[in-house]
Formats: sequence, C-alpha cells, structure tokens
Amino acid sequence: MKIIIGVIGTSQATNEELKIAEEVGKEIAKNNGILVCGGEGGVMEAACKGAKSANGLTIGVIPGFSARDANPYVDVPVITGMSHARNIIVVRTSNAIIAIGGGYGTLSEIAFALRLGVPIIGLNTWEVSSEIKTASTPKEAVKMAYNLARSDN
Amino acid sequence: MKIIIGVIGTSQATNEELKIAEEVGKEIAKNNGILVCGGEGGVMEAACKGAKSANGLTIGVIPGFSARDANPYVDVPVITGMSHARNIIVVRTSNAIIAIGGGYGTLSEIAFALRLGVPIIGLNTWEVSSEIKTASTPKEAVKMAYNLARSDN
Amino acid sequence: MKIIIGVIGTSQATNEELKIAEEVGKEIAKNNGILVCGGEGGVMEAACKGAKSANGLTIGVIPGFSARDANPYVDVPVITGMSHARNIIVVRTSNAIIAIGGGYGTLSEIAFALRLGVPIIGLNTWEVSSEIKTASTPKEAVKMAYNLARSDN
Amino acid sequence: MKIIIGVIGTSQATNEELKIAEEVGKEIAKNNGILVCGGEGGVMEAACKGAKSANGLTIGVIPGFSARDANPYVDVPVITGMSHARNIIVVRTSNAIIAIGGGYGTLSEIAFALRLGVPIIGLNTWEVSSEIKTASTPKEAVKMAYNLARSDN
Repeated sequence: MKIIIGVIGTSQATNEELKIAEEVGKEIAKNNGILVCGGEGGVMEAACKGAKSANGLTIGVIPGFSARDANPYVDVPVITGMSHARNIIVVRTSNAIIAIGGGYGTLSEIAFALRLGVPIIGLNTWEVSSEIKTASTPKEAVKMAYNLARSDN
Repeated sequence: MKIIIGVIGTSQATNEELKIAEEVGKEIAKNNGILVCGGEGGVMEAACKGAKSANGLTIGVIPGFSARDANPYVDVPVITGMSHARNIIVVRTSNAIIAIGGGYGTLSEIAFALRLGVPIIGLNTWEVSSEIKTASTPKEAVKMAYNLARSDN
Repeated sequence: MKIIIGVIGTSQATNEELKIAEEVGKEIAKNNGILVCGGEGGVMEAACKGAKSANGLTIGVIPGFSARDANPYVDVPVITGMSHARNIIVVRTSNAIIAIGGGYGTLSEIAFALRLGVPIIGLNTWEVSSEIKTASTPKEAVKMAYNLARSDN
Repeated sequence: MKIIIGVIGTSQATNEELKIAEEVGKEIAKNNGILVCGGEGGVMEAACKGAKSANGLTIGVIPGFSARDANPYVDVPVITGMSHARNIIVVRTSNAIIAIGGGYGTLSEIAFALRLGVPIIGLNTWEVSSEIKTASTPKEAVKMAYNLARSDN
C-alpha cells in the first residue's frame, strides 16, 4: 500500500505559503506517495496542484455536500457532509502530516494528530508541542514525513 | 474528473453475491471509473478485487481506526473512526451506487441514497422504492450506473 | 438513569401523524422518560410538544449548525453540524425507538436501529423487518417501548 | 431556552483540576445552566458531579458506543459512536466553554471553538490565542461564561 501524506493548512494562505505548499505536493508525488487534504482552496489547492504536476494522486476530504467544493486538482473528492468533523478523517487517513502555516482549523488537525500519534512536520506552523518536527524547506519536510511515516496505522 | 461508482453490500455475502460483486468491480474499472465502498470484507472485498484485476482505483471508507481494517484490494483507505456514520460518506461520494444483496447496513445506505437523490441500481437487493433500478447482470448494472450517474453532485 | 425513548419520523407529516406523535411524546413524558429526536419540525416537533405538555425533557439532535434550527419544544439542542449523520446518534442514544410514518430519512434510522439491535416500535411505518414491532395506538407504542427498552446499551 | 455551558478538560486530571472542575460544575448549575461535556472521567466527571450537587442537568456527548462509558453523574448520555469527532459536537452545542487544564483532546476543542467563534474561558489551559479569556477562580470563570455566552448560535 502506498504511503499517504496529509497536507494541512488554511484556505486563506499567503503567497509564500502557497509556494511552499505547491513544492510540498510536488515532492510527495515525486516520492510516489498519495496526497490527502481537505480538498478546498489555499494551501490545500496549492499542494494538490503541485502533486498533479508530478502525476501524483490527490484525495480531498470535503466538508460540504458537493464535489463542486473540491479544488480543480483533486482526483477523488470524498464528500463527508460533516463540516469540520472531516478534519479528523484527514488526520486518521495520513501516515504522516505536513502542516503549513495555519489557522484554527489547522490547529484542530494538529491537536488530533498529536492526540492520535500521527507524526507531524511543521513549516511555519503552530508551535504547541515538541512532538511537532520542524523543517526548513518543502523538500526537507517531505523527506522527514516519509522517514517518520507510521506504517502500522 | 472520473466517475465514482459506489458498491454497497454486506460483509457476510453468499458465494453468488461475491461473484457478482467481483464482476461489478471489474466492469467499473474497465469503464475507467473509480470504485468507492466501505473497504471491508464480503461484497466490498470482492468488488475491490475485481476492480484491481482491471487496474482500477479503489477507495475504502473505513469505519474503524486503522488501515489494517481495509481489505487487501483497497488502494486508498480513508480512515473515519466514525463507525456506521461512514455509510453516508460512501453514499455522498458516489455518482451512482450499485447495491448487491445486503443486510441492514446496506439498507441504511440505500435509504441515504434515496434521501439524497443518488441513483441506485440493485442486484437482488432491498425493494423499498421504485426509484431503485433493477439490473439482471453485473455488466448491465454497471452500464446503468454510468448512464444514470449524476454529474452535478 | 432515566429511560431515553427515540421518536423518529418525517418533517413532512400528515395531520394524523402529527396527532399521533404528540400523543406519543406526552405518554413518554408521563412515564418519566426522556425524549430524543432529530429536533426539527413535523413528527419531531409534535412529539416534543406532547412531551413538554407533560413536563418531560426533550433532546433534539440537530443536523445543522444552529440552535435556531431546533423546534420550540426542544429543551437541549445538541448541535452536530453533521447533516444526516446525526441520524445514527439519535438511534444510538435511544433505549428504544418509536417510528411514526416516515420517509427515507426515517428508513435510514430504522436500518441503523435494526443493525445495532435497538428495539423499534412502528406506527404506520416502513415494514422492512419482522423485528419491527407494530403498535395500534400511541399509548400502546409507548408501553411497548418501555417494555422492550434495552438497559444494557 | 436555558444557557448551555461546555466544560472541557482531560480525563487524566490532577487533584487541583478535579477540584476546580467540580466547583465550575456546581456554579453552572446554581446559575440555572445546562452543563455539556464529553461525559467521561477526570475533569468531565468532576464537573458533572458538581452540577448534580446543585441539581443541575448534565449532558455527556460520548465518543464510544455505550451509555456505560458515561460517568455516573451524566443525566443524558448522547451516544455518538464517532470517537474524537464528538469533540466538535460538544463545542457546537455550547453557548460558552470553560477549559480546565487540558491535553491534546482539549486543544482540539479549543481550536474548534476559536474557529467557530464560541467564547472560551480558560483556567490554566492552553494559551494559543488572545481570544481565550483567563479566569482566576471557578466562580469567576462561570460568571464570565454567562456574560460572554453567545445567544445567537
């Protein structure tokens, strides 16, 4: 089974965050992983765009009721209709998570990942625990994610 | 975006149901669709097995907490940790649904599909509504599913 | 701990169903039980109204995002934000369930109750299983619900 | 409709946290509010115990499958079967939230509350936002919760 890497971050992202997210997505795909995210805009869209540029597979776990809510780079929109409760599905589905910037929604996902023991690599994100590993570049973050990915989830 | 066809049916299936499910999965993949299901055994496993035999992509929406609960033919285990509430995610994610045999869990998915207007094709399944279209063979069921698939979900 | 009786039925109810639901709610309260339902209109509102007329406690498990979605007879609106996935919470929370009339949403709740072994008493509802016990009057339905209520859930 | 105050905090609490939680629960009940929490042990149980000592009403939103998972001071166990996804139901149901101490589960609830605009009062809890108001005593926390409680949720 392929490694599934989660990318979390806000839909209201800075240009710098979008650039980082796109590189992260590309690196995930180049390393043959599946990208899972919330499927919406901002960091999520940039990461999916990057993954598709390297022919990766992208899964978007959508909070709303429609595949139309997915960004155009999502291959498989998983429609939950459960609003923010979908955040925990993104976390559980990931072998490791890369957090980029982030608002309160991202913080909820980080908290669930810490609660459930899913490895997190942070790129300029919430510093609420020493269990969050810090990366300096997208490439380093993805490398760390593959190294730390749990295989027994 | 590719068509996503849901396959629903019990984990306690008869040999005849398993054979039908495997053919359904194979036909979905041959027609270039993505298969989504509950990711467990029985009808779900047989359908995934069939899809993989034709190099299809299989998504399993898992009720429990672990990718280990997925059958071996699931490419992407989406881990919900929400028990039977995952049934509604299978329904919402599908452009059309094929129901094979089925117990009470399957009935809950049929009810949600009827409630939400997702087309259902039945192969020896619950007859609770004239909105459920009946097919005689796996091949016919998949053909009907592609014809009826909603494109605006 | 008090017995919790679930009342399920459509928001688009007939006058006859509303009258039955109100009597059911009143009987539940007179027998000192807690009423749980989906908290919206139709059968749910009538049942809550009946329960309040006998000083009962009413819990509404709301699909949307706001307490404003609750009917005026709900004492405790439990806000899920999970749309139809809240149906399974209504079922799990009940020691026994009374189904009145019903559309496809009600059918999904009946299916979950059958799947999970929650006793169901039906008043002109879906006849999909011999496990659904049929009552002729609201009073009889409530009496049966108390008699059949699981105490080990 | 009565004010519903959420109390969040870990099941692995210190004696000091338990004492604070019990006083918080008692004050909520004395002020005629309904207490909602996760329904389990630790801070949740102590808060429910305090509320019952003042004849309050306690709602426990249970992550598992059984009312037996509820602490003995829960009047209404709402059984979700959705594991940690129940955290967001606790948040949405509350007009205001009091956070006591707290682990990662509590952090996820704080993050959701910040995301959704539910007022939070903290007693020795996570300091991740200036939007979390700090109280020095249980009595002050409850007073602040009633003052800040949203009435339009």
